[in-house]
Amino acid sequence: MIIVLRYGHRRDRDKRVTTHCALVSRAFGADEMAIYGEEDDQIIKSIKKVVEKWGGNFKCYFIKDWKKFLKGKKKEGFKLVHLTMYGINIDDIIEKIKEDYRKNRKLIIIVGSEKVPKEFYEIADYNVAIGNQPHSEIAALAIFLDRLFEGKELKKEFENWKLKIIPCERGKNVKKRED
Amino acid sequence: MIIVLRYGHRRDRDKRVTTHCALVSRAFGADEMAIYGEEDDQIIKSIKKVVEKWGGNFKCYFIKDWKKFLKGKKKEGFKLVHLTMYGINIDDIIEKIKEDYRKNRKLIIIVGSEKVPKEFYEIADYNVAIGNQPHSEIAALAIFLDRLFEGKELKKEFENWKLKIIPCERGKNVKKRED
Repeated sequence: MIIVLRYGHRRDRDKRVTTHCALVSRAFGADEMAIYGEEDDQIIKSIKKVVEKWGGNFKCYFIKDWKKFLKGKKKEGFKLVHLTMYGINIDDIIEKIKEDYRKNRKLIIIVGSEKVPKEFYEIADYNVAIGNQPHSEIAALAIFLDRLFEGKELKKEFENWKLKIIPCERGKNVKKRED
Repeated sequence: MIIVLRYGHRRDRDKRVTTHCALVSRAFGADEMAIYGEEDDQIIKSIKKVVEKWGGNFKCYFIKDWKKFLKGKKKEGFKLVHLTMYGINIDDIIEKIKEDYRKNRKLIIIVGSEKVPKEFYEIADYNVAIGNQPHSEIAALAIFLDRLFEGKELKKEFENWKLKIIPCERGKNVKKRED
């Protein structure tokens, strides 16, 4: 069970970045994305549509209290990974995180928008940097999941798809399935 | 020399996504990003600021004619990689691309916004899918560069930095250097 926590969503400014975070979470093998911030039905709807078309069981929802959420999950045995450019370089810590994940299969990955509360650095089991340069929480999330799943997520098959791409050298080849 | 071509920038809708593309390009080891679309000085300025603070020589600029641009670069010996969810899965093609890159060191990576012209599929030497699920051009770019550089880009040092992060387990540790 892998849950991504997207912290600090602002409806106007972050609409597309948060949507990209959700799509990456799904495509790279996370199970859920919890969003904390200004509620925004459109994101939930657009992700639902993607799941209906492309398959899988990915869920996306808003939460009202991130502290309660994280504390509750910690009690359930989840380990918390906070992605931040200030943290330990992923390649120096990923083996330890993988070991944790193999044991309990419960992981929360926190990605913030511009500023996150200081408490994240304390509550997290791991503060992980996808390189120590400024870039993008979307890229950070993708690289983290790619390292965790050792690249295998890129060939993951989703159940209950209505659309499926058949890879090809030129152009587009999409298979359709009607229920 | 690695140039990212960001196709189809729309000033309002894409401001942040295009900025993330530029930051990822820089952080993951590309040299330049050319943007085709609605001109937008703010992006250029904000990336310039990042380079001034965090170092390196990354450049970002707008182009007026993408066809001319790509044809010119092809003549100079650049190979064209088009990132698209319809393409060949990266792990089935990356070794070939790496071989090309080792030979001529000239690569253009095309990332589009929602829709791209059909010609991209034809003009590209490689149509590459970072998995065949819908997600994010930002994530796609990051994973592509990460595969190309075999993860080494995450420890890349940038010259002429004024700010540099010292990785740490909790909190923030930033080194400052005055000229």
